[in-house]
Amino acid sequence: MPLLVMKFGGTSVADLARIENAAKKVQREVERGYDVIVIVSAMSGKTNELVGWVETTSKLYDAREYDAVVSSGENVTAGLMALRLQEMGVPARSWQGWQVPINTTSAHSAARFVDIPRANIDAKFAEGFKVAVVAGFQGVSPEGRITTLGRGGSDTTAVAFAAAFGAERCDIYTDVDGIYTTDPRITSKARKLKKIAFEEMLELASLGAKVLQTRSVELAMRYKVRLRVLSSFEDTDENSGTLVCDEDEIMESKVVSGIAYSRDEAKITLVTVEDRPGIAAAIFGPLAEAGVNVDMIVQNISEKDYDDHPGAVTDMTFSCPINQVARARKAMEDAKAAGLINYDDLAVDEDVAKVSVVGIGMRSHAGVAAKMFRALSAENVNIKVIATSEIKISVLIDRKYMELAVQALHDAFDLHKAG
Amino acid sequence: MPLLVMKFGGTSVADLARIENAAKKVQREVERGYDVIVIVSAMSGKTNELVGWVETTSKLYDAREYDAVVSSGENVTAGLMALRLQEMGVPARSWQGWQVPINTTSAHSAARFVDIPRANIDAKFAEGFKVAVVAGFQGVSPEGRITTLGRGGSDTTAVAFAAAFGAERCDIYTDVDGIYTTDPRITSKARKLKKIAFEEMLELASLGAKVLQTRSVELAMRYKVRLRVLSSFEDTDENSGTLVCDEDEIMESKVVSGIAYSRDEAKITLVTVEDRPGIAAAIFGPLAEAGVNVDMIVQNISEKDYDDHPGAVTDMTFSCPINQVARARKAMEDAKAAGLINYDDLAVDEDVAKVSVVGIGMRSHAGVAAKMFRALSAENVNIKVIATSEIKISVLIDRKYMELAVQALHDAFDLHKAG
Repeated sequence: MPLLVMKFGGTSVADLARIENAAKKVQREVERGYDVIVIVSAMSGKTNELVGWVETTSKLYDAREYDAVVSSGENVTAGLMALRLQEMGVPARSWQGWQVPINTTSAHSAARFVDIPRANIDAKFAEGFKVAVVAGFQGVSPEGRITTLGRGGSDTTAVAFAAAFGAERCDIYTDVDGIYTTDPRITSKARKLKKIAFEEMLELASLGAKVLQTRSVELAMRYKVRLRVLSSFEDTDENSGTLVCDEDEIMESKVVSGIAYSRDEAKITLVTVEDRPGIAAAIFGPLAEAGVNVDMIVQNISEKDYDDHPGAVTDMTFSCPINQVARARKAMEDAKAAGLINYDDLAVDEDVAKVSVVGIGMRSHAGVAAKMFRALSAENVNIKVIATSEIKISVLIDRKYMELAVQALHDAFDLHKAG
Repeated sequence: MPLLVMKFGGTSVADLARIENAAKKVQREVERGYDVIVIVSAMSGKTNELVGWVETTSKLYDAREYDAVVSSGENVTAGLMALRLQEMGVPARSWQGWQVPINTTSAHSAARFVDIPRANIDAKFAEGFKVAVVAGFQGVSPEGRITTLGRGGSDTTAVAFAAAFGAERCDIYTDVDGIYTTDPRITSKARKLKKIAFEEMLELASLGAKVLQTRSVELAMRYKVRLRVLSSFEDTDENSGTLVCDEDEIMESKVVSGIAYSRDEAKITLVTVEDRPGIAAAIFGPLAEAGVNVDMIVQNISEKDYDDHPGAVTDMTFSCPINQVARARKAMEDAKAAGLINYDDLAVDEDVAKVSVVGIGMRSHAGVAAKMFRALSAENVNIKVIATSEIKISVLIDRKYMELAVQALHDAFDLHKAG
């Protein structure tokens, strides 16, 4: 029997009417001949309520108790979904993480999958059950305690089940109808993609197109799980939404698939840093320890030579989320005070944004960077930092030009035209 | 290490402030040197919300899914209580039913305990944990599904743990401060009892003093678990509340301990029933099948002899809750139509109430019934039906005299005076 995984997020199961709506989508797949594993989130708002109670009760809470409390929302949805399906005549039962069991590490609130043995659920399918409704976001540790995967973990649960059960596809039902070439709020020319490669989705997800958890896409890529993102609130069929898949499945791929952006960036420059082996480690070690998510890094290979700096010196620039600037500054000042690094000045620019063009086609096409820079230049957008990867080029620019830049790049790469 | 079980009901853990209040009571017992097993209910209102969702989703719901959904409220409270205790510096952890494990039968929504192995919790006490916070009302079936014990089951969970762990006492914290000689709303002379025997509590509980679940008292009596009922909302010490215990512990027991009543009774009489062997079974079999809770039964050994009833005939009278009269009437009419029984008339009196005097001292004291009947007669209260057991005498009277009767009996047996 072919098998599908279907995942419904919090807004898709926000109340009994929406649970019924989701159940109908499951029923349709059963009627098409699939066995279905449904992964559910908590009804929207429930997890936040539980988290609020935990945090009010204990600031430095025991993560094991946090997990025990916070996981309960998914259990409720799973039971209600199973009941609704039964009511429609679809043989279904709910599964909590420990019942499957979904074996994870003991890293509470940030657990990782160890394995998901198929035996229990397979036995139920063999008995004639058509649907296993599994509580997302949770698992069980080797010590028999309830674990959670961190917020948004239900996407990851869905992909893990799709991998473990060899599902034909993993459908992620959410409140958007697919992945777009860029944010439709920025340009109305944004177009829904039929397909996108895992690598592209990873770059788009981590850059702000927050439809899928990055971790779930990584897992899907590793196990080649075909992911589909589609809307809970529309009539959907086998062609709806966007398929996130291996690049081999994308015949007609364009050079650039999408334009991502991130509004809340800051640029920090350490001015006149001693240029010696190990200096990068001396700077970025303390930043990592302080929990600063450093993104772009540029070292200006300058030839400064002041009287008071007899050796070679350089400027080191990096970007991080704007709300981590204070933490970054403190980490650098502490490192300077401890004599680990030295610099003349720490310059912060909090008025920057990042814009990126993403596409697996770049690998085989030269000239993407040049085209990007030309398009920005034509709009008089000054580029402050550039960083490139195999399938992405990112630039840091003044925040006030961000929307203009996204629009200009969307036009320049003809993204409004179907691939 | 001596061990206590402490149970907090829904109103005692209704919000974070009340959970903190309950946690302080637990902390005090830990400071006195006890290891403590805390049994918690769901925050008040939560279980009703969950039950409402289940019943809206599915009228004839799968009880396994009902249990999976409805048990989640207790898990939340258990985690929050453990966190609050940790915050106070008390080493504690939460336990869900399957983690202990609390092994029950598979009778979902009405499961019964099979056993509660001590090993897991004992191991944690040995590691230095002082408190095990256990989610009440739930267990796990041999098939690994979550079960519940039926509403109010947390009292029963508490007693079962007290029995399994040989607790010194099982303290039931609730919204009343103990067991009274009668309902204080009926007479201000009602007095809180220091001690009451299990058997008396059973009669009082099933007669309407709804402080403890009958089942939990039965279990406590079987395993000789000393139960204490006391208030969550008052400062309490080792002398607070009412101790429900073996009669051996009650030295100075009075003949009568309390006056119970039940307002919503109905009296049904089957007039002119054939008086033959098996007639009682023919009547009360169908009533039981129809779910009618028959309480008192009286057969008038009359010597009616009408022309159309050549054999011996009798009248059969029984009482049941007033909201079951329609069901009882239908069961009798169906049985008559099927030729299983015969009667001339079915007379219903819906204006009756039951008043009972309860006391283990009755066993060795004659004259209690006579004293009771005299007291009622002195107030011109007519007795319609009498039923007696070893430690209880109940009468059915007109409902309008109920409060008068309770007051008169309370006075007659000197219950306002301390034992």
